[in-house]
Parts: sequence; structure tokens; C-alpha cells
Amino acid sequence: MLKVGLLGAGRIAGVHATAISSHPESKLAAVSDYFPENAEKLAAQYGCTARTTEEIIADPSIGAVLVATSTDTHSELIEAATAAGKAVLCEKPVDLSFERAQACQEAAAATGRPVMIGFNRRFDPNFSALRKALAGGEIGKAELLSITSFDPAPPPVSYIRVSGGLFRDMMIHDFDMANFLMGEAPVTISAVGTSVVDPEIGAAGDVDTAVVTLTYSDGRIAVIKNSRRAVYGYDQRVELLGSEGLLQAQNMLENTVVKSTSGGVRSAKPTYFFLERYMPSYAAEWAAFVEAVATGQTLPVTLDDGVLALAMAEAATRSATDSVPVNLSEVMG
Amino acid sequence: MLKVGLLGAGRIAGVHATAISSHPESKLAAVSDYFPENAEKLAAQYGCTARTTEEIIADPSIGAVLVATSTDTHSELIEAATAAGKAVLCEKPVDLSFERAQACQEAAAATGRPVMIGFNRRFDPNFSALRKALAGGEIGKAELLSITSFDPAPPPVSYIRVSGGLFRDMMIHDFDMANFLMGEAPVTISAVGTSVVDPEIGAAGDVDTAVVTLTYSDGRIAVIKNSRRAVYGYDQRVELLGSEGLLQAQNMLENTVVKSTSGGVRSAKPTYFFLERYMPSYAAEWAAFVEAVATGQTLPVTLDDGVLALAMAEAATRSATDSVPVNLSEVMG
Amino acid sequence: MLKVGLLGAGRIAGVHATAISSHPESKLAAVSDYFPENAEKLAAQYGCTARTTEEIIADPSIGAVLVATSTDTHSELIEAATAAGKAVLCEKPVDLSFERAQACQEAAAATGRPVMIGFNRRFDPNFSALRKALAGGEIGKAELLSITSFDPAPPPVSYIRVSGGLFRDMMIHDFDMANFLMGEAPVTISAVGTSVVDPEIGAAGDVDTAVVTLTYSDGRIAVIKNSRRAVYGYDQRVELLGSEGLLQAQNMLENTVVKSTSGGVRSAKPTYFFLERYMPSYAAEWAAFVEAVATGQTLPVTLDDGVLALAMAEAATRSATDSVPVNLSEVMG
Amino acid sequence: MLKVGLLGAGRIAGVHATAISSHPESKLAAVSDYFPENAEKLAAQYGCTARTTEEIIADPSIGAVLVATSTDTHSELIEAATAAGKAVLCEKPVDLSFERAQACQEAAAATGRPVMIGFNRRFDPNFSALRKALAGGEIGKAELLSITSFDPAPPPVSYIRVSGGLFRDMMIHDFDMANFLMGEAPVTISAVGTSVVDPEIGAAGDVDTAVVTLTYSDGRIAVIKNSRRAVYGYDQRVELLGSEGLLQAQNMLENTVVKSTSGGVRSAKPTYFFLERYMPSYAAEWAAFVEAVATGQTLPVTLDDGVLALAMAEAATRSATDSVPVNLSEVMG
Repeated sequence: MLKVGLLGAGRIAGVHATAISSHPESKLAAVSDYFPENAEKLAAQYGCTARTTEEIIADPSIGAVLVATSTDTHSELIEAATAAGKAVLCEKPVDLSFERAQACQEAAAATGRPVMIGFNRRFDPNFSALRKALAGGEIGKAELLSITSFDPAPPPVSYIRVSGGLFRDMMIHDFDMANFLMGEAPVTISAVGTSVVDPEIGAAGDVDTAVVTLTYSDGRIAVIKNSRRAVYGYDQRVELLGSEGLLQAQNMLENTVVKSTSGGVRSAKPTYFFLERYMPSYAAEWAAFVEAVATGQTLPVTLDDGVLALAMAEAATRSATDSVPVNLSEVMG
Repeated sequence: MLKVGLLGAGRIAGVHATAISSHPESKLAAVSDYFPENAEKLAAQYGCTARTTEEIIADPSIGAVLVATSTDTHSELIEAATAAGKAVLCEKPVDLSFERAQACQEAAAATGRPVMIGFNRRFDPNFSALRKALAGGEIGKAELLSITSFDPAPPPVSYIRVSGGLFRDMMIHDFDMANFLMGEAPVTISAVGTSVVDPEIGAAGDVDTAVVTLTYSDGRIAVIKNSRRAVYGYDQRVELLGSEGLLQAQNMLENTVVKSTSGGVRSAKPTYFFLERYMPSYAAEWAAFVEAVATGQTLPVTLDDGVLALAMAEAATRSATDSVPVNLSEVMG
Repeated sequence: MLKVGLLGAGRIAGVHATAISSHPESKLAAVSDYFPENAEKLAAQYGCTARTTEEIIADPSIGAVLVATSTDTHSELIEAATAAGKAVLCEKPVDLSFERAQACQEAAAATGRPVMIGFNRRFDPNFSALRKALAGGEIGKAELLSITSFDPAPPPVSYIRVSGGLFRDMMIHDFDMANFLMGEAPVTISAVGTSVVDPEIGAAGDVDTAVVTLTYSDGRIAVIKNSRRAVYGYDQRVELLGSEGLLQAQNMLENTVVKSTSGGVRSAKPTYFFLERYMPSYAAEWAAFVEAVATGQTLPVTLDDGVLALAMAEAATRSATDSVPVNLSEVMG
Repeated sequence: MLKVGLLGAGRIAGVHATAISSHPESKLAAVSDYFPENAEKLAAQYGCTARTTEEIIADPSIGAVLVATSTDTHSELIEAATAAGKAVLCEKPVDLSFERAQACQEAAAATGRPVMIGFNRRFDPNFSALRKALAGGEIGKAELLSITSFDPAPPPVSYIRVSGGLFRDMMIHDFDMANFLMGEAPVTISAVGTSVVDPEIGAAGDVDTAVVTLTYSDGRIAVIKNSRRAVYGYDQRVELLGSEGLLQAQNMLENTVVKSTSGGVRSAKPTYFFLERYMPSYAAEWAAFVEAVATGQTLPVTLDDGVLALAMAEAATRSATDSVPVNLSEVMG
């Protein structure tokens, strides 16, 4: 039984608390939060104790921590927890600073402790089925990948300002999805971005709509489309053309009801946002973490994956700013 | 080159005129109509002559006639044309009177001339693909057939009064579709009907909504649903459960555009009515007729098929009236 | 906090145990089973005690029991639990004997305690969305209802023999769905059944494929199709034609992946069976029970609903046997 | 009645011959071809005369010519026919040389005669319905356009060598589609291309897979994906994200049959290639030409549109070669 400390008690921490508690081989032992009352509340609901982050990391009976705090604390907590001998599952991104993330990567590697980054979409039943079909050779060799990833509505501009920008905050999931499906890092990254949804986002120095093209050493191409606003709901699709066919992972819908009237044929919208769409993926992600920690096998998503996605975000940001393709190697150093 | 006389110059005759003219091995030679000016008009459009029905039937250079006149003249014209040695393609139904249709069947059989009944839906690309899949064993043995057939809007009550009733006028196509797919006549027919769409239709002695269940000697079952009103368009679907799967022929849509908004996901409606939906089937029907006549092979739909569908309509009418299942053999005699 | 006794510790009891435990206002207090070791096991998993059924019913601190035992004990346990003052949620059917169910209905009514029957499909997100759209007038007045309900594979013939037959064992869910959507009991019931899937089922006196037509006092019609075998998975669809449109609740699919190859375009199959498809409905069912018990409101599905569905199964069984439509009033007495 | 001369008697000329003949206000008067016997054959089929191109252009009774010859003759024939006072519908592209196309544009403009370029996809019922919805404000303001355009199989490398390259030969249709939907020319064009389908195509100096990103002066973005090989058929989709929704034009399928078996749910493939998919668009294109010529209204697609698409192809070719975004103004001069 893996005893787990949960760092952070916000909304996504609640999702993780359920996954940890429901898993037959893990147990939620303690919760901490910047606001102790939040930790108290979550602890009460799940029958564990509220403690400080320091106490949790120092407790030798706790085998793993799940980091669900604000982004600016991720690197530090990964370092502290691995130094204390714990296995870590940390929410994405590793850090907004690529250099800081690299430092964290080195420090954690030195401890030899396993660190997994929470790219939960890899565990979405649709995307994992798509990858399984690809791996099974069902469409031959991959050639052209397309990822569509639209949020239902933009966050407040105040959030945009501290988010690190669309490429680091939002498209980072899609960079990891590209890595998951293409199986290697791209060579070049070309980005265009615009603030066509809301000029305030542009005024804040960010973009709200972007297209990024990735090229690979063997000639494959990937294209990622992001928009901060799709009024019909969370649009999360992947499509992959191969030498022997096409794989598409389409949206999940709110229900299967279809209504035909004189006005047309209407079906339900996509599930509204990430909690609705990706809820099953959090449980699967946690199960994969527990199993890898228990067996000592390689984690399905590593800290290296987190750093790679961040490097791609860095390259895309530069490309969009300078209007030139950027070689990933320039960023990775 | 098959020279063809077209009897009737109404809307459906126009559709047939195009099919006859476009076929490389048939030529529209003459047109007649109860209103000679209609015949003149159609003849002018297709570069042939307007003549009387009698002249057309008497003309030995004309090898085939297509009967697209009013239903009450079908039997008589089939008899006259076959007696004159012509091949005949006659619009459904053979007759509203089952006895009259049987007499016509005997008379035509005595001439040895081929007579095809215009059950055009057999030639619809979707239904014929479904049947081909069934015949190819793709779902194993057929077990349970469902036919949904809804018109977009009811005809005027004045038409209803002379139509012979829903089972003879509308469901007759579905009876033939059942025969086409099940490959034999049913044993029993149970019908329920109601005038839930328009009480005026009930007052005129007819129904506007009906469900008919057919049973077969080997245990298979078919169910047919008809409604005179589906405000979203012409709803024409078939679904067949077999021992190894399910086949469904779905509606044709007006276009493939899908619109997702905050109000939902909207696609196009089914094509509006039979001309839009079944246009391709008329050309395929005519091609099948021309080929069978040219090669002397059995017609893909025969006068016997027309009489069988009519017997089923007769049985369904009785069943709905008397609220008991009716054995088809009671009607067929 | 509602303290709940769970009678039965089989597979479906496990599903209910999760629902009871996860609900913030209910608590699983005790479990019993015919085989005490099964109760012990389930109790251990959910941190409650294993007791005898008698002890649970006698415990005044337990406010509600959930009956998930074998069908032949349902009536007796409903009577005992209501007599002991408890609220009851009992799995369907009330009883295989319509007379016994009626007696149970009377006895339970005399206690004034609420009894809900586990027609979980009413709580399926798709069917409940369909009903909500209907109730909201989105397709005008209902006219023609179609329910398709196919199991993935037939149960063993040994089960068939004690099941009460397809109409009581399987179609009973669809009878309740018809009642749920049409809002009143039908007037006549016409059934045809056959053992086209497996002649052994016919030899055991049952059918494996059936079509039932229901008529209503206001002219509406419903048709239910059942098959014990759909090799592609659990096929659970509803479609309702109204004066202003059509509502369809389609199948849930295993995932949204679509694969296009030279062989065609392939999507995932429907979820395999009832646990996969209806899992969300069990939690919603329990939540509705807890809320109704807490507020004293009418239960969303009552014992009367259970008895009505059973009467319809009784009528359908007679109709299929005697090949005549049966008036429901003949059965209801 | 518009008398029409058809220059060219190949496969696509046959399609046009049908459209010209079927239109009530146009008449096919003469056909020419590089190989006179081809012209003879087509003329015989449609009851017109085979003549030389020079004779057709010199005939004052012929009001319009349709140019369906090889690409290298387009500019010259447009110039000759307009100089002779004829209205012209010319197949795309205007020329493989952008400079030559510009010279043609000037020469034709000097005559004042109307010249339409055969971007038939604008007349596809799906794409035109999408544009109509956009123009009607159904998704608010356009923000992000995606065009997917995959051929079923690559042409022979011998064809590739003289084709002008993927951007001029294949993507030119998509450039025009972008112009059709976005309503203005883009500012920058960034292209990546690869020969991942067939290295022989790369050896011939071309690409077989490409992604092009277009940016617009008002911040909108468009992305076009091309592949020479989609083994499942002709993949022709458009999707447009706007401020109030998403519009998608999906593929046409061969039929509507769906087969569900233990192996999955299978539907038909997209229609195989352009003749199957775009047949209806050729008739609509011709009708639009005839109406514009008759009324003197502006043509729905002009020679300017043809030159613009060619400039975009030019820019994309440069961008793919030099790995930098190209400003369209650099090409347009």
C-alpha cells in the first residue's frame, strides 16, 4: 500500500484525491496547502490529516507525493521530495522557465527517484486507443499528425499575464501529445500566433490562436492548432495520416441524443471542459504511476518528457515572435 | 437500341424520360398523356413525338413501354402492352384491387412478355449495398428486419380518400423492401394503425401512422413503421440484425456541413422527399430493365413481386381493421 | 445521513455499494448475503459489517435497505423491510409472479413506506436527456416510440429456464422505458416471439427474439424490439417520433476513435454490456432515491411502476403464446 | 442560347460536355482536340461537330469557349479566345509560370471579355453551404480555417516531373478555397513539405506531403494540409472556427450503410476521387458561368482569382524551399 502525500488542495487536487483513495493499492495519508484551511477541508472529506508541506516531505512513512500546487513551486517541490526519497507525480508544467526546469531535471536525476509529469491526456481512453492502433500497425507508418485543441473560453487576462503564454500554458499538452504519438522529438518548430479572439490578450503580450508546424528527421510532419475559444465546448481531437490509413480521435459528447426537426439535425455538444472530458484519464494516470512505482518499471511519462515539452514551447514562442522556424536543438542546447 | 414509349407525362414520367434518354441503349420514341398538351411539352423537351396511348401500343417499332399513368389504368395498360408484344416497366402499384391485379398477372403471364414493377427503392445505392452485404454473408443469417419509412408531410385528405389507404399507397414500397431483403413472403401479418397525425385522415377511413409485424416460416421477424409526417424530411432507413452483426442503411443528408455552436452541433436534414432521395435509383432501375430485356434474363422485379406486395397490403389492411394477425395465405388464396 | 443495509453481495450489489458509499448523504452500514462469506468480503472492502438479513431489517438505526438478492426473495424482503419501517430500493423485477407482486404491492402500500424499483435505465444520461427534451416540447406531441434493446449474447439455457421468459426477464426494462416516456400505460399489447438465435431456447419454452407493439388510448403507438444476441455489443437505443421532430438516443461507444483504411471507415463498438453502459445510471438512481427519501417526495420509480411493467410482461407473454393482441386491462384485473 | 466551343476532348472535357448539353440555355456547338479522333468521338456522342481550335475561335456564332486542354496552352487560348470576343471558362491553373499568367491576365483584361477559372470546388454543395452559413453570420467572425485535401494515390512520377510541383498542381485548389472562404488574400505564407509517401517524388524535386500556414492582415490564420496518398479515398474537408462556432464540411461517403460486427462498426469510404466527389460541382459551375455571361454580371471566379492562387503556390514553393515565411507581396510584385 503506497502512502501518498498530496501537496495542494485546489480543484485538481480534489480530482487526484479521489483517484488516490479509490485505488486499491494507494492511500491518501496527508494533504497540505498554502491556505491551511483548504487542506483541512480536503483532509476531512477523505479521512486523512492536514499537515504542512515540510512535514509531509519529511515523513518517511509517505512513499510518494503528488504535486498539485501552483506552477512556480513545482521545480522546488520535485527537488525536495526526490531528495527525501519519494516518488513524485507532478502536474504540468515542470516550470515556466526552461532553464529552471533543466536544473530540476538534473537534481532529480541525481536522486534516482522516479518523477512523473501529469500529462494526463496520454491516458485518455480515446488517445490511448489511437496510439495503440498506431503501434499495432493499423495505419502503417505515420506521416502527418494533426492536433486540434480549443478551450471553451479564454481565461481572464490577469491569468494570461502570469501563464507563461499560450505555448507554455496550453499548447504544452499538445506538444506532449505529439511526442507521445510520434515517438521522438521534432527537428524544427514553426509557429504563428494571433490575438484574434481578444485584443486584450494581445495587449498582454500573448496570443489566443496559434498554429504550430513540427518537422521530424524522417520527413514526418505534425501540425497543432490552438484557440482559447470554441463556444461549443472543449474541442480535443487528434488525427493521424499514415501510409495505410487515417486514425481520428474525436470529441466526447455530453450525451448521444440526436434531435431532428424542421430546423436541422442536432446532437449534443462536446463535454464542456477538461474536468468533464479528462476525468477518466486522471484515474488511469494514477493507476499507471502506482504500478510503475510498485514494480520499479520506467514511468510512462517522465520528467524528461516534461522538459522536452517545455523546450518545444520555448521554441514555438521564439518562432512566433521572430517569424522564423526554430531548430529544437537551439533551445535544448 | 430499345425504342420506348412513355405512357404518362407527369412529374415521375419526366424522371423516367431523363433515364430513358440518357441510357446509351434506349431511346425515347413517343409520349402520351391523358392531357395531350402535357405529352406535347415533354416530347418537345426530349425531341420525340407526342402520340395517343393506343398509337404507341400499336406501333411495332416500339419495343417497350413505361407506364407512368394514374394507378387505375395500370392493369389495363400492362395487359394491352404485353398483348401487343411489348416489354413493360410499370409504376407501382399494379392496382388498388388485389383481384384485378391477379387477373392482370394471369393475362400478362399468358403473353410471355416481361413486366417489371417500379419498386425503385431496390435500386437505391444504400439499400442495394445493404442487400449485397447480406448476400455476401457479412452479418451471417438474417434474424430481425426493421424498416422505417416516414414521409415529410401528409398528402391532402382528398388524395388520401382515393389512395387505397396507407398500406396500399405508402407501405407497399416497404412490403417490397421486406421481400427484397428477406427473400421470401411472410407467413403472418399483424398491423396496428392510427390517425394520430391528423384526425381528418382517420375520418376519411385511413390511418397516418402504422406498425406492421411480419413473421416468416423459419422464425425470422420483420417490423415496418410508417408515418405520414416527419417534419425533418424524408426518413428512409433499413436495419437488419443477423447472427453475426447488424446492417443499417441510414438517411442521405442534404449536405455534409456540421455546425457547432453554443446551441449544439447541427447537421443537415435528410433529403426532402422521394425525388431528391431516390433520383439515382430511377436511372439504375431503368438500366436494369434495359439489360434484362436485352439479354432475356429474368427481371429484377417482376409483376409477381407487385402482386405479392399488394397481397401484403391487403392483409395488413384487414389486420389493422380486425385487430388480429392475418395469414398471408388467406389473402393469396 | 441515511444508514443503509445492503441485502445481497453479488455483482450488482457491488455496484450499489459504491454508489451508497460515494454519496455524501448515505452510508453503507451492513451487508448480508445467502453466502455469508460473500457478505464478509464486500463488508471488508467498504468498511462496514456483515450481518444476517434478519438483523439488518431488525436494526432500527438502519433507515433504508437496498434489495439486490435473487428475484424469488424480492416480494418477501420488500414486505419485511417496509413492515420494519424502512425505505426500500429493490432491483427489478418485483417478482416473476404477477399475483405475488400485486400482493406485495398491497402489503407495502399498507405500511406507507416508500419503495422504489431499480429501473436504472430511467437514469441513464441519454434516456433522461431524451425525456427532458420531450417534456420540454422539443418535438411536439409524441406519436410513435421505438425501443431497440439487444443483449450482446444469450445467457445459458439453464438461466433461461428459471428466468420467467424474455418478456419478464429482459423486456421488462423496455416496458418500463415505454411507461417512462409515454407517461401512461398502454391499452393493447401484441407480441411475436421466436427462437431464431438458438433453438435450445425455444426448446426451453422461451423466445430469444421478439417484437411487441403497444397502443395507447390517444392513438399513440410504441414498438419494442428485443434480441438476446447482437454480436457487436449491447444495443440500447430509443427513438421517438413527434409532431415536430424525432428524438433518438444512440449507443454509447467504447471510444471515439475512427479508423479509415482501404477496407472502410471503422469506429468503436457499443459498450459491451449493462455494467459498462449503465454504470453512471446506478449512481444517479441512488442519488434520486436518497433525495426522495430525505425530502419525503414521491419516488421517481415506484412499486406501482414495477407491478405495471410486470403486467405488461404478462400480457406480452400471453399475446405471443396465443397470437392475439391482449388488452392490458385483462391482466391488471 | 449560348453556343459553346469545347477545346480539348479528354476526360474532364467529357464532364464539361455533359454539363453544357444538359443546360437549357447552352448548346455544345463544336469540339477540338490535339488528337482529332478524340474530338470526333466526343462530337459524335453529343451531336456536334469536330473542328480545329482555330476554326472554333474564329467562328463568330460561338459565344463562349471552354478550355480543357493541357495546362501549357491555357494562357495562349485564353488570350486568343478573348481577343476573338468570346467568354471563356478555363480549367485551372492559368499557367505553371506565374509571369506568363500575369501577362495573360493583362491581355485578357484589355479585351474586356469575361474569363472564369475552373475552381469547381467553390460550387461543391458542401463547401458552398459552408460559405453560405459563414456569410450568414452563423459562426460569427472567422478566425481559424483548416483545409484537408488528400488524394487517394499519387500520380506517376513522370507526371510529377511536369506538374509544376504539389503547390501549383494540387494545393492550388486549396489556395483558392482559402480565398473563397476568407474573402481576401493572405499576407504571409509558410510552407513545409516532405516526400514521406514516396522518396521517388522527392528525387524528382517535389514533395508529396505539405502543410502551409497563411496569415491575414486582420489576424486570422489558415492552415492547409495536403497529401498525395490517403488509401481510404479522396479526403476533402474544410473546417472553420469562428467567434460563435465551428463549421465543418465533411467527406461525401459512397453510401450510408453501416455494418456492426464483432470487429467494430464499419461505414463506407469517402467517394474515391474528384470525378465522384465533385461531379455535381461541374454542373453548378457551368450554370454559374452561363448565368453570369447572360446577365453580364461579374463571374463568380475570375482570372484574377486564378492568378492569385498561382501567386500563393509560387510563394509556398519558395517558402518550402528556403524554410522561411514568404510575404505574398514579394511574389505579386
